[in-house]
Amino acid sequence: MKLAVVTGNPHKVKEVAAYFAGILEVEHVPFESPECRHEDVGVIAEEKARYAWEALRRPLIVDDTGFYVTALNGFPGPYAAYVQDTIGNEGILKLVDGIEDRSAYFETAIAFVRGGVTRIFRGRIEGVLVQPRGSEGFGYDPIFEVGGKTLAEIPLADKSQISHRARALRAFGEWLEADSMADDRVRPDDNS
Amino acid sequence: MKLAVVTGNPHKVKEVAAYFAGILEVEHVPFESPECRHEDVGVIAEEKARYAWEALRRPLIVDDTGFYVTALNGFPGPYAAYVQDTIGNEGILKLVDGIEDRSAYFETAIAFVRGGVTRIFRGRIEGVLVQPRGSEGFGYDPIFEVGGKTLAEIPLADKSQISHRARALRAFGEWLEADSMADDRVRPDDNS
Repeated sequence: MKLAVVTGNPHKVKEVAAYFAGILEVEHVPFESPECRHEDVGVIAEEKARYAWEALRRPLIVDDTGFYVTALNGFPGPYAAYVQDTIGNEGILKLVDGIEDRSAYFETAIAFVRGGVTRIFRGRIEGVLVQPRGSEGFGYDPIFEVGGKTLAEIPLADKSQISHRARALRAFGEWLEADSMADDRVRPDDNS
Repeated sequence: MKLAVVTGNPHKVKEVAAYFAGILEVEHVPFESPECRHEDVGVIAEEKARYAWEALRRPLIVDDTGFYVTALNGFPGPYAAYVQDTIGNEGILKLVDGIEDRSAYFETAIAFVRGGVTRIFRGRIEGVLVQPRGSEGFGYDPIFEVGGKTLAEIPLADKSQISHRARALRAFGEWLEADSMADDRVRPDDNS
């Protein structure tokens, strides 16, 4: 199976290709699905994937990532990118100023479509909000601490082992391996 | 012409019906268009309207409203409802704490589709962020001051004259009147 990674972001494709090296052929398809509003990144990824499937009709994945701050009722959630571009890390820290609960998590959902059947795989990483440290990564990485280090203090190679996207990819990879051992055919009635 | 107001919110329908009383017959159609992400409420309203048109094939309007704070790079913008539900007015005020520029505006875009042709009408109201005052209205009304009063201090009947939605409705109504005087037919090539 040749897997289309449907995204505008070539960095995502590299991460997927690195993960499946020797197992799966991966191809970047820069197709733009409209991105609908929902608080669950799984639903967003699924809708984008279905849209892409209608246009492309080939095995593909689409992902979506959210950033959820507990004390802010999950804000910024699926709007992580827009919020990063407007109020940024400074805004997030201002919002939790004086609040004790600093817990937050990233969640990535990967939607995989083959033969019209969609499956969702999720990966999550839990941490706490801190003052910015480190220069690796991007976005919320400098203010998100896991096990004593911010994601911006963890080299990319190590981050790629523990990140929300890595965990979602692993869940997908494990399912794919089990599925291909069980039955290599496409099963359109297997819509869970 | 009987106009379908496509929305889940019956209050919006009442406002439209009141505006067009004696001019246009208005009917509430609680159809749900998927709401896509874009920073311009005009684009969001247009996409929702086109989706509704495909399903309904009758003259209709759909609207979308955003709230834009200058010092926050336009945040929360089209995500006004989500942001209100998560960080609320308290969060917005915390974000502008210590910032001199308190200017903000509401913008409503109304998308009107007839004969497959879509037109967008906009209404905007400019004001400044203040500590909450008043008990009318909802959402950002208590912290949004226009001409010395917050929208939550202005009775609904008066607010309905000056609001962003009222202004968009007026723009739509004026165009509709001019258009019906000029030519009562549907002109599918008149897609501006």
